Amino acid sequence: MPTIKTKAAVAWKAGEPLSIEELDLELPKKGEVLIRLVATGVCHTDAFTLSGEDPEGIFPSVLGHEGAGVVEMVGEGVTSVEVGDHVIPLYTPECGECKFCTSGKTNLCQAIRVTQGKGLMPDGTTRFSKNGQPIYHYMGTSTFAEKTVVPEIAVAKIPKEAPLEKVCLLGCGVTTGIGAVMNTAKVQKGDTVAVFGLGGIGLSVIIGARIAGAKEIIAIDINEDKFDIAKKLGATSCLNPKAYDKTIQDVVVEHTDGGVDFSFECIGNVDVMRSALECCHKGWGESVIIGVAGAGKEISTRPFQLVTGRVWRGSAFGGVKGRSQLPEYVQRYMDGEFELDTFITHTMALEGINDAFDLMYEGKSIRSVVSYE
Amino acid sequence: MPTIKTKAAVAWKAGEPLSIEELDLELPKKGEVLIRLVATGVCHTDAFTLSGEDPEGIFPSVLGHEGAGVVEMVGEGVTSVEVGDHVIPLYTPECGECKFCTSGKTNLCQAIRVTQGKGLMPDGTTRFSKNGQPIYHYMGTSTFAEKTVVPEIAVAKIPKEAPLEKVCLLGCGVTTGIGAVMNTAKVQKGDTVAVFGLGGIGLSVIIGARIAGAKEIIAIDINEDKFDIAKKLGATSCLNPKAYDKTIQDVVVEHTDGGVDFSFECIGNVDVMRSALECCHKGWGESVIIGVAGAGKEISTRPFQLVTGRVWRGSAFGGVKGRSQLPEYVQRYMDGEFELDTFITHTMALEGINDAFDLMYEGKSIRSVVSYE
Repeated sequence: MPTIKTKAAVAWKAGEPLSIEELDLELPKKGEVLIRLVATGVCHTDAFTLSGEDPEGIFPSVLGHEGAGVVEMVGEGVTSVEVGDHVIPLYTPECGECKFCTSGKTNLCQAIRVTQGKGLMPDGTTRFSKNGQPIYHYMGTSTFAEKTVVPEIAVAKIPKEAPLEKVCLLGCGVTTGIGAVMNTAKVQKGDTVAVFGLGGIGLSVIIGARIAGAKEIIAIDINEDKFDIAKKLGATSCLNPKAYDKTIQDVVVEHTDGGVDFSFECIGNVDVMRSALECCHKGWGESVIIGVAGAGKEISTRPFQLVTGRVWRGSAFGGVKGRSQLPEYVQRYMDGEFELDTFITHTMALEGINDAFDLMYEGKSIRSVVSYE
Repeated sequence: MPTIKTKAAVAWKAGEPLSIEELDLELPKKGEVLIRLVATGVCHTDAFTLSGEDPEGIFPSVLGHEGAGVVEMVGEGVTSVEVGDHVIPLYTPECGECKFCTSGKTNLCQAIRVTQGKGLMPDGTTRFSKNGQPIYHYMGTSTFAEKTVVPEIAVAKIPKEAPLEKVCLLGCGVTTGIGAVMNTAKVQKGDTVAVFGLGGIGLSVIIGARIAGAKEIIAIDINEDKFDIAKKLGATSCLNPKAYDKTIQDVVVEHTDGGVDFSFECIGNVDVMRSALECCHKGWGESVIIGVAGAGKEISTRPFQLVTGRVWRGSAFGGVKGRSQLPEYVQRYMDGEFELDTFITHTMALEGINDAFDLMYEGKSIRSVVSYE
């Protein structure tokens, strides 16, 4: 098979820094698209997998799932995008044909879930290799490479005017947060909202809640350094759970005369998930889990919490269908409904990607963006 | 204060049989209604409280919350019912004015919750007494008495044509089950449903699912004696979890090619609540907890279950607003949408009420109805 060369950051082993390598990349096969990436965010999920904690982590692989780029070549049968199109690769594809896509009830297309989970393209092989050794894909996107190959159903076409080095964040974090508010929870004007965890997702939830017209947006984190940016984005009050003798759910319930209409867990901590549920208003409050918990962790609560009207749900990629709905999110950004600059605290070349992980570990970044240009 | 006499079954102490007594009953005060009961069902919740397991149980008290009767006297200011009206007492009142009633989102009126929880009328006193000793109210209804006094906001007026000795069951169990399907879950035509536990609530869920047009209704119980009646009411298949080597959620998921659209827990067992959630379809399946768990019990699951689209909620009195919506349920019964005779396996006079508890403990009844006439 014909191949080209691409520079990529390879995760050879769990727990080790990424290594910049020149890899062989097979050209796209039937139903596949070759993308030249312009930028990619570095997300906590990449760090989670790199740490070795992710039970589904596969090595060696090219991580990265929050990218944006330009179509450089299309495989046989590809009709929905063409060379030169600007695109965002999707870790949640949208085939439009499976039971999930046609249900109208979920964005969790399952068309290529099995192979994607194994780090493979839908035909069961990898496109990346080094000296003949296969290098696995990651989340079906592998955006820590100058060039990547993805299935056509995992590509969202976006307007050419959108700045790729910014809207790459809509490939994961920002869409996940805003979508959880707008698509999953369906927050309405005048509602009250509590946001647990003020990383990229939590801050995006604040943006979504502001756009939705929430009258009260309570931002919660044990790191008060995050409060300024939370307020800048729309939080009406900020709470540090460590500042109280009682549970944070009791604090929120008192603060809101009964609890919030909606809460969002944006950390992945099962104890916080319980707090988020229990700070919801009796009778109708809904809590949305966005954070990804460690392997084997479980949530719990007294069933009375649900019997008295609270609802517990979750959200993945903000409930957003990548190909049909993500372009709307890009348009909202371009229309000025929200900004992304606040999120991008650091920019670096691919060679500096390990710095991006270090900044994240040290809590010093919201998002680092790797620029390929 | 003027009093009359009424026969009642008094629960003097937890764990002891009820005692038939002649009690003093104060006439209704402002905003209260005196009801002559015609019939009352004996429900598991009465048994739960009588057992002493209910942390909120108060003694001595007049239990009973599934009754129907005729208004015999009204207190000052009562305008919504008059002497001779046929009514069902409501343990979930509907004041129409509190934050909960006006929200349009819940049936959990909180107007008199605090006093009701203490076994008192809204003015903080009891109407029942014996030789000057106060006897407490129960769930605001105390239907194990020939006559009872309840707040006006806890009375649903129903058509005089409705047979009170049958529609008393709509005061709790049957409405709870049908309402959980229609109001809480909003099951639609063609949906698949799993029902865990085939007591009065579970069987009522089957009725609701049939009325809603569910295409598949899977009835689950470890007591196969319940399967015939479940099928008679509309179950399309019956499963005994003990008949399989794998978990019941795995059995249901395989049986339905991915899981059910809706599941209902009608037992009060937290392990079954987990099974009910996890047998729901990825992406959209919703599980509704109806059963009341023991004190201190907790539900748990992996958060991934919710992040991948399942929803966990609960239902109390089927989400039905007693005064504005319960009359519709009575009308549905009278229109022949469902029957109640199947539920009423035993009928007895008040003097036989301890037999009703024994039949329940032995699993021999669906509902025993005490007839006062």
